[in-house]
Amino acid sequence: MGKQFLEITEKEVVERVIADLSAKLAKKNVAETEKVIIGEALGRIASTGIFSPLNIPPFDRSTMDGYAVVASDTFYSAEDKPSSLIIKGYIQAGEFPSHSHQYVEKGYCVGISTGAPIPKGANAVVKVENAFEYVDVAMAVEGGEKGKKIKKVKIYKPVAPAENIMLLGSDIKRGEKIVRNGTTLTPRETGVLAACGIKEVFVRKKPSVAIVSTGNELVAPGDHLVPGKIYDVNAQTLNDSVRDTGCVPLFLGIARDSLEEISAKMKESLAKSVDVIIVSGGTSAGVGDLLPTAIEEFGEIIVHGVDIKPGKPFILGMIQGKPVFGLPGNPTSALITFNLFVAPLLRTMLRDYEEGERRKTKRIKVKAALRIFSEPGRNEYVLVNLVKMKPPEEENFFAYPILSGSGAITTLSKADGYIFVEKGREIIEEGEKVEVELFISL
Amino acid sequence: MGKQFLEITEKEVVERVIADLSAKLAKKNVAETEKVIIGEALGRIASTGIFSPLNIPPFDRSTMDGYAVVASDTFYSAEDKPSSLIIKGYIQAGEFPSHSHQYVEKGYCVGISTGAPIPKGANAVVKVENAFEYVDVAMAVEGGEKGKKIKKVKIYKPVAPAENIMLLGSDIKRGEKIVRNGTTLTPRETGVLAACGIKEVFVRKKPSVAIVSTGNELVAPGDHLVPGKIYDVNAQTLNDSVRDTGCVPLFLGIARDSLEEISAKMKESLAKSVDVIIVSGGTSAGVGDLLPTAIEEFGEIIVHGVDIKPGKPFILGMIQGKPVFGLPGNPTSALITFNLFVAPLLRTMLRDYEEGERRKTKRIKVKAALRIFSEPGRNEYVLVNLVKMKPPEEENFFAYPILSGSGAITTLSKADGYIFVEKGREIIEEGEKVEVELFISL
Repeated sequence: MGKQFLEITEKEVVERVIADLSAKLAKKNVAETEKVIIGEALGRIASTGIFSPLNIPPFDRSTMDGYAVVASDTFYSAEDKPSSLIIKGYIQAGEFPSHSHQYVEKGYCVGISTGAPIPKGANAVVKVENAFEYVDVAMAVEGGEKGKKIKKVKIYKPVAPAENIMLLGSDIKRGEKIVRNGTTLTPRETGVLAACGIKEVFVRKKPSVAIVSTGNELVAPGDHLVPGKIYDVNAQTLNDSVRDTGCVPLFLGIARDSLEEISAKMKESLAKSVDVIIVSGGTSAGVGDLLPTAIEEFGEIIVHGVDIKPGKPFILGMIQGKPVFGLPGNPTSALITFNLFVAPLLRTMLRDYEEGERRKTKRIKVKAALRIFSEPGRNEYVLVNLVKMKPPEEENFFAYPILSGSGAITTLSKADGYIFVEKGREIIEEGEKVEVELFISL
Repeated sequence: MGKQFLEITEKEVVERVIADLSAKLAKKNVAETEKVIIGEALGRIASTGIFSPLNIPPFDRSTMDGYAVVASDTFYSAEDKPSSLIIKGYIQAGEFPSHSHQYVEKGYCVGISTGAPIPKGANAVVKVENAFEYVDVAMAVEGGEKGKKIKKVKIYKPVAPAENIMLLGSDIKRGEKIVRNGTTLTPRETGVLAACGIKEVFVRKKPSVAIVSTGNELVAPGDHLVPGKIYDVNAQTLNDSVRDTGCVPLFLGIARDSLEEISAKMKESLAKSVDVIIVSGGTSAGVGDLLPTAIEEFGEIIVHGVDIKPGKPFILGMIQGKPVFGLPGNPTSALITFNLFVAPLLRTMLRDYEEGERRKTKRIKVKAALRIFSEPGRNEYVLVNLVKMKPPEEENFFAYPILSGSGAITTLSKADGYIFVEKGREIIEEGEKVEVELFISL
């Protein structure tokens, strides 16, 4: 039975030892990263800057339903004096202009839908609202057959070059940083990653915790309960308690009360690179020195015995820089010592994640940095960026409206939130207090 | 283009419609249950009472390391006048007494470890601290060989019948209710379920949400980006936004801008018994009436067009009692309309789960219902049950200490929390204010 219970440590001392250890481990843990697929990236913290591998949009793209034209063909168009262009064909979103009837030259146009690529030759898009399609019977078109029906469109308003076109890479450029290191990935970020076709990202690792139950009398729930055996409770309780902290449990199964089996579980834990090991059972007098002996085989014992009840036989050891907790086999004692000593360590190791959660203020009052105009007759959500004010007011923010082309991914990724301008209001004055519904955590 | 945008509904009206709808759906949703394995039951709400299929402990079990005896053999034992018993053998936790050397008769005993089954004939256990093992050379044992070494134990203190034994079923009886309908399953409950060997439980269903992206120009992130196409953003954004509410997203893939494909996705959603359907894209003028037409094929349209910007083409329909949301294809507009109209509905449908979270007060001040004694020289955690006080103070509670055998699962499952009695304090007076660290949500 050796030195068991010879040195009972005071609860406060154990708490201090664990607090110091936690802080060290948390610092080390920030450097540890893992790769996750985008589908599992929500809520994780990016551990590198992330850059776009492609231009967005990947081609010049129409932002309107209408007609792709040579802008100069429309310069003299007016309500009472429309220009008239021949429609060579149509291009839909998802198509790519590859046929000659999808190329535009002066005097011609191509019907185009929102999101479709701009055909070669065109440099602007006339909105469908400013155009009228009709069928003309050919009169004297060069090379045309007399009497042939020709589709044409009347243009009632001029367009400038590039109007209603989102240019290749104008939203996000290839190589541009789209997520900063340390950002908590919300649906906005995962959406931007999807837009860039990114499938996997590196994120800060969540500590993983090996869980081992010891005891000859234990069988796993679900197995056949032979006489003399009982179902293992702690595997479930500790597994779920670890999940509750946000860390990742890894149950390694039941070890019999033998040094070989307990040592084998330690080796398995180390091989699996877990961050923390929890062994329940095997700490009290009956089973003897098995767990302490196993710990000393690989590392050292820091605490063995605390002045608390229940939970006196609690063990804390260190193996290769990883904490090993020995909790009593009694389920209530195991849960209490977990909550008292293990949970605070795991929470500190996860503190980046916890801080992200805590900083999730949903709304904030800020000052409008500019005069903001809103469309009359509509409730408008104006996307804004927040910029810190100068001292002595640096805890407050200015809101700058984001003026962005429709369909821009960057509107989604770069906005910090939005302000609501209710129907009937058309102007928010510079310096006016406004409330921002936040996308980000401050 | 039909009746699109003919009837723009006011934002407040849409919000009211959705609030009414949410309340109805939430009520209906409480009745929906699903089966989950214990490993995935954490945080779920039990939708039935759960009963133990077995007795716990499943056999009379020693609560101490020591010697299983016939109690009457020890009645006259004293420090200066120990009784002496012959040790027939030993039984360890996990073994079952099946050999004759594990049966006890008067004058004999069996060495026993904590958790081991009580051998036939024994009716009490003497703690190892009150016993001393030695080897006696046989003198005149009946039928014994002279000179044979006999293992014996001196007993220094009497034990009463049943002392240090936890009787079969004394912790939990077969058929006893171990979890109430409506309980949020914490590690305590999942531990008790494990103790009873229960592998699956019925829990309240979390609403599932089908997500469909529409657009000829979309390809799934990870697929090859052919010219003219862009990556689908909304599948990711909406999937993660649904996850953020706590509901279960089910992405059904990309539909091309065709009535057949959109209708097929509706059918697939219904076949999969989802609770809510979200379709993004296909709401604006360019794509025409596809989504509204598909909705009207199976159900009806409630709202088509809201006086907000962005988000004007928002659609709400109902198909077979399930809400169908049509969100704009533009990622920012999709996210804003999701947050504005879809998230509140999903949160209301999940309100049981949300209330469970909200009620998680960690600590509460209560009155001690009885005088509570604590062991001197140890920090003690006393498990308590809380009982409401009588009017007019019924918002306050009395704490009753739980006096329970060591190793009892019920201590874990029936305690509402614990009070901490620091070293040096031995008594908490009846009526004294104490702080309870809660296991449960109040």
